[in-house]
Amino acid sequence: MKLVIAIIQDEDTTNLISKLTEEEFRVTKLASTGGFLKSGNTTLLIGVDDERVEDVVKIIEKVCKPRDITATVSTIPVVEDTFIPYPYNIKIGGATVFILDVDRYERI
Amino acid sequence: MKLVIAIIQDEDTTNLISKLTEEEFRVTKLASTGGFLKSGNTTLLIGVDDERVEDVVKIIEKVCKPRDITATVSTIPVVEDTFIPYPYNIKIGGATVFILDVDRYERI
Amino acid sequence: MKLVIAIIQDEDTTNLISKLTEEEFRVTKLASTGGFLKSGNTTLLIGVDDERVEDVVKIIEKVCKPRDITATVSTIPVVEDTFIPYPYNIKIGGATVFILDVDRYERI
Ligand code: NI
Ligand code: NI
Ligand code: NI
Repeated sequence: MKLVIAIIQDEDTTNLISKLTEEEFRVTKLASTGGFLKSGNTTLLIGVDDERVEDVVKIIEKVCKPRDITATVSTIPVVEDTFIPYPYNIKIGGATVFILDVDRYERI
Repeated sequence: MKLVIAIIQDEDTTNLISKLTEEEFRVTKLASTGGFLKSGNTTLLIGVDDERVEDVVKIIEKVCKPRDITATVSTIPVVEDTFIPYPYNIKIGGATVFILDVDRYERI
Repeated sequence: MKLVIAIIQDEDTTNLISKLTEEEFRVTKLASTGGFLKSGNTTLLIGVDDERVEDVVKIIEKVCKPRDITATVSTIPVVEDTFIPYPYNIKIGGATVFILDVDRYERI
């Protein structure tokens, strides 16, 4: 048995828990923040049989892979009161995953 | 030294922390939810000497054992404005326990 | 790779995360309480290469070392409506640190 501790972005939480639950993984969600500067992280605990660890990692990779999204702001006045929509990229996603060996596991 | 990570139901939290503290175990409580559908879970971290792990597991089993409670609702109108109390069972309790080996432990 | 789980006092959290981040450690902050009687604890998760574990422990020791602070209350009426400021010590700081071996680590 392994314990997977996955630190993911809030945006990916619902989707990841949904995908893991579909595949019969049991997930516990802890509230977390990314420390000093960053916020909006969630920590998941997932207990998993050794032979299914790879499946969990693949699901996390698929759901949480870093990706750019394009957003649009209109903050540059070209002519007075005339704004040109200005597209820019935001990087979202990403995950940090620790996999620990479990000495003993009990379901009560 | 072992680290016990116990995911229990909110209802059992006060009672379990009380029992563990009486036996001199040191408990840290993390807020958690049971993921997608379930809510109301609490995660406890308990650092424990190897030879006392069994004691912790027994306390968790005793406090958190799955059990039925009987509740009563009155939602079935038999005659207009007349409700018959309707007893039903709810399952409560249960716990998931991960026990991990600790490489190194420091109290500062 | 090791996972450091540090349970520290709320008062030391900002300072510790700041010092760890300066040294390029990656920190995740979980909300926690100290169980039955105590409150105001924070749990940090810090993933760290084996050879830097000692550095993390030293930073935690430095920031979170137990110390007395002197506070003043004025609660003893000597003469009617006359209070003498009464200094007393409060112990703050302290930390509990679990260091676990990581079987596998993924950054996604
Ligand atoms: Ni195993
Ligand atoms: Ni040990
Ligand atoms: Ni290692």
